[in-house]
Amino acid sequence: MLRQMPGMMNMNEVDKKLVKMAKDVIKQINGQNPPSVEIPQRGLSNVYYDDQDKILKMGGKTSKRSFMNIAHTRKFMQTMLVASYAQRLINDNKHAGIRELYYALKHSIGKTKENTFEEQSESNIIIEDIERMLDLLREQMNLTADRRGFIYGDIQIHDSGDRFNASKLGRGGWSVPGNIEDIKFKKSNIDYILAVETAAMSDRLIEENFPKNNNCLLVACQGQAPRGIRRLLSRLHNEMDLPVVVFTDGDPYGWYIYSTIKQGSINLAYLSNTLSVPKAKFVGMTMDDIETYDLKGVTEKLKDLDKKRIEEELKYPWFENKKWQKQLKKCKKMGVRIEQQALANRSLEFVAKEYLPDKIENKNFLP
Amino acid sequence: MLRQMPGMMNMNEVDKKLVKMAKDVIKQINGQNPPSVEIPQRGLSNVYYDDQDKILKMGGKTSKRSFMNIAHTRKFMQTMLVASYAQRLINDNKHAGIRELYYALKHSIGKTKENTFEEQSESNIIIEDIERMLDLLREQMNLTADRRGFIYGDIQIHDSGDRFNASKLGRGGWSVPGNIEDIKFKKSNIDYILAVETAAMSDRLIEENFPKNNNCLLVACQGQAPRGIRRLLSRLHNEMDLPVVVFTDGDPYGWYIYSTIKQGSINLAYLSNTLSVPKAKFVGMTMDDIETYDLKGVTEKLKDLDKKRIEEELKYPWFENKKWQKQLKKCKKMGVRIEQQALANRSLEFVAKEYLPDKIENKNFLP
Repeated sequence: MLRQMPGMMNMNEVDKKLVKMAKDVIKQINGQNPPSVEIPQRGLSNVYYDDQDKILKMGGKTSKRSFMNIAHTRKFMQTMLVASYAQRLINDNKHAGIRELYYALKHSIGKTKENTFEEQSESNIIIEDIERMLDLLREQMNLTADRRGFIYGDIQIHDSGDRFNASKLGRGGWSVPGNIEDIKFKKSNIDYILAVETAAMSDRLIEENFPKNNNCLLVACQGQAPRGIRRLLSRLHNEMDLPVVVFTDGDPYGWYIYSTIKQGSINLAYLSNTLSVPKAKFVGMTMDDIETYDLKGVTEKLKDLDKKRIEEELKYPWFENKKWQKQLKKCKKMGVRIEQQALANRSLEFVAKEYLPDKIENKNFLP
Repeated sequence: MLRQMPGMMNMNEVDKKLVKMAKDVIKQINGQNPPSVEIPQRGLSNVYYDDQDKILKMGGKTSKRSFMNIAHTRKFMQTMLVASYAQRLINDNKHAGIRELYYALKHSIGKTKENTFEEQSESNIIIEDIERMLDLLREQMNLTADRRGFIYGDIQIHDSGDRFNASKLGRGGWSVPGNIEDIKFKKSNIDYILAVETAAMSDRLIEENFPKNNNCLLVACQGQAPRGIRRLLSRLHNEMDLPVVVFTDGDPYGWYIYSTIKQGSINLAYLSNTLSVPKAKFVGMTMDDIETYDLKGVTEKLKDLDKKRIEEELKYPWFENKKWQKQLKKCKKMGVRIEQQALANRSLEFVAKEYLPDKIENKNFLP
C-alpha cells in the first residue's frame, strides 16, 4: 500500500491559513485600523541551534509590517499580492515556479510608473516571510523551486496516476521534481538512503550495482542539495524510518552540504523540521581517508574560499564535537581537499567494493 | 521493435582504432624511429562553417606529436596513458567519468616528483586530441561527461535490461545519463522534439500536459545542453526522423544554446556530425515576441556579458541571415532580454495553450 506522509498538510488547511490572514487584514480595515501583519524576524539574530532536536530553529522575535508605515507600504502590498496568488494556485490546483510568480505579479501600479516588483529577489523574500508567518512550506502553497537531482533504487513511486519503480529506469534514474508534496512512496527493498554529492559518483555507483547489492536508495544531489531533494530525504526518513547516510567530497563545501541536509540552513531555519534529517550520518570523505586509503597523490590544494569556510565551520555549534573539530583542523593544517572521484585512483570498483561497504558495515561515521 | 542507431559504432571498431594507434607507435620504436602521432590541430584556425551541411567542421591541418621532441614528450606520454586507459575500459565493459580518468591516471613517475597530470584540464585536452585523431566520440571510448537534463514524453527506452516509457514517470521524467551510446529507443506517439532551456519551463509544460496534448517529447537541457542531451537529440533526430524545435530565453545566451544544438560548438567542431542537429528550428523567445505578446512590462535589462555576446553572434556565419541579424540588432537597440518564464505574466497556461501552439502550427520559426 502506498503511504501518505503524516507531516503532509491538507490543501484545505493551507487555504484556511491564507484566508485567515486576509480576513484579519480586512477586519482591521473595517474597524478603521491601519492594516498590518506580524512577521517573524529573518537573519541570524533570530536563529538558534536546538541542542535537543539537533536542528536549527527560529526564535520568537517578530516585526510588525504595517500598510500605513511608509517604510513598510511596498512590502505590505507585496505580501498581499503573493499570498493572494498562492491562494489562487491552491484553488486552481496549479503549481508555479517562484520565477513565474515574480513575472506573473510584476506590473506597474495604476497609471504610475511604480512596479509591484523590480527583481525576483523582492518576491523571494516575501515568499519566505509568508512561510515564516504561516508556518508553511512554499511547496505547500504550490510554489516550486528549481529542480535538480535524481534518485535510483528499489522504491515504488506513485505520482499523477503513474506507478513505477526507480530501480527499473536503466542507468538514468528518476529526475526529482521541485515539488514532491503530492507524491506517494512505497518502500520495496531498501535498508537505507545514500545521499551523494556528485552525479558522476552516482553514475559510478549505479554502474557498480551498488544500490542493488546493498539494498540502498541512491539520491544524487548534484551539488548543494536543492529543496526538492531535501524534502524527499526528510519525508523518506520520517515516513519509512530509513536511515540517511551522506557521501560528499572531503572538503569544507562537501561538509556544508552534509550539514544542510542534517540540520537545515541558516536562511531557512524556520523550515528545518520539514526539510532536515537530524539523524543523518556522514560516511566520507574525511581527512583521515587520505592516509587510510593511501590517497596522498590525488589530493587538491585548498582554495581561499575553502579556507574561509573552514573558519566558519569551526565555529558552528553543530560541528562542535571532537570528531568534526579534528577533521576541520586537519584540513586546515594539511591545506588539501580530497574528492569522491579521487577514489578512482585505487580502481573504479574500489568505492563500491571496499570503501563504502567497509565504512558502512563498521559504522565508521562522523556525527 | 527497438532500433539501434545506424551511426553507432561497434565496440570492436573502437578497440581496433585504439590498438592500431598503439601498434603504429610500437612499429616506429622497433624500426628505431622516434615514435610520434599525427593530431588534427585544435582552435578556431582549424574550424570552418560548412555552408552545405550547415554545421561547424574541422579543417585538415595536423601537427606531429613526437616523443623525442622535449616540447612534446609530456603530452606524448599523456596521450599513450589516456588511450591505453580507454582501451582497458572497453575491454572491461566499464565506463569512467573524465574526472575519474584524471584521478585514475595521476601518479608520480618512477622515483621522480614529476606527476603524469597536474590538473584535469590536462587530461581533458588529451581526450579531445584522441577524439580528433581517431574520429571517435569520447562516449564511444566509454568516457562520460557530467550529466544534466531530463526528458518527458511518450518514448520507449531500453537500457541495461530495463524497458520503460518516459511519459509514465509522474511529473519527474527520466534523468538522462552522460553516456547514452548503448541505449535503444522506440518511438511511440511522438511527432517532434521540443528542447527547452530551463527546468522550470519544462515543469510548466508538464503540468499543462503539453507533451501529451501535442505528441511531443520534451527535453529539458537545464542550461547549456550537456553532451548527453546533445547526443540524445542528434540520435533521435537522425534515427527516427524527428524534427527538433528549440525553446530558450530571448537573449544572447539562449540563442547560443540554440546554435550549439544546431551546428555544434567551436571547441568540439570535430564532433558536429554526431552531436548536432543542423535542421533544428528556433521557436522562441525572440525580440518580436515582446511586442506581439505584450510583454514590455516584464523584460530585463541586458548585462555587459549579454552585450558582448551580441557582438560575437552578429559575426557568426550561422547567424548571417536576415532574420537572425534583425533579432540581434533589435536586442542591441532595445537593451533588454525576455525570459521564457516571463510568459507567466499573461497567465500560467499561456505558453502551453497559445504561445507554443500558435508558433509551431504556423511554423513561425527562426532558421
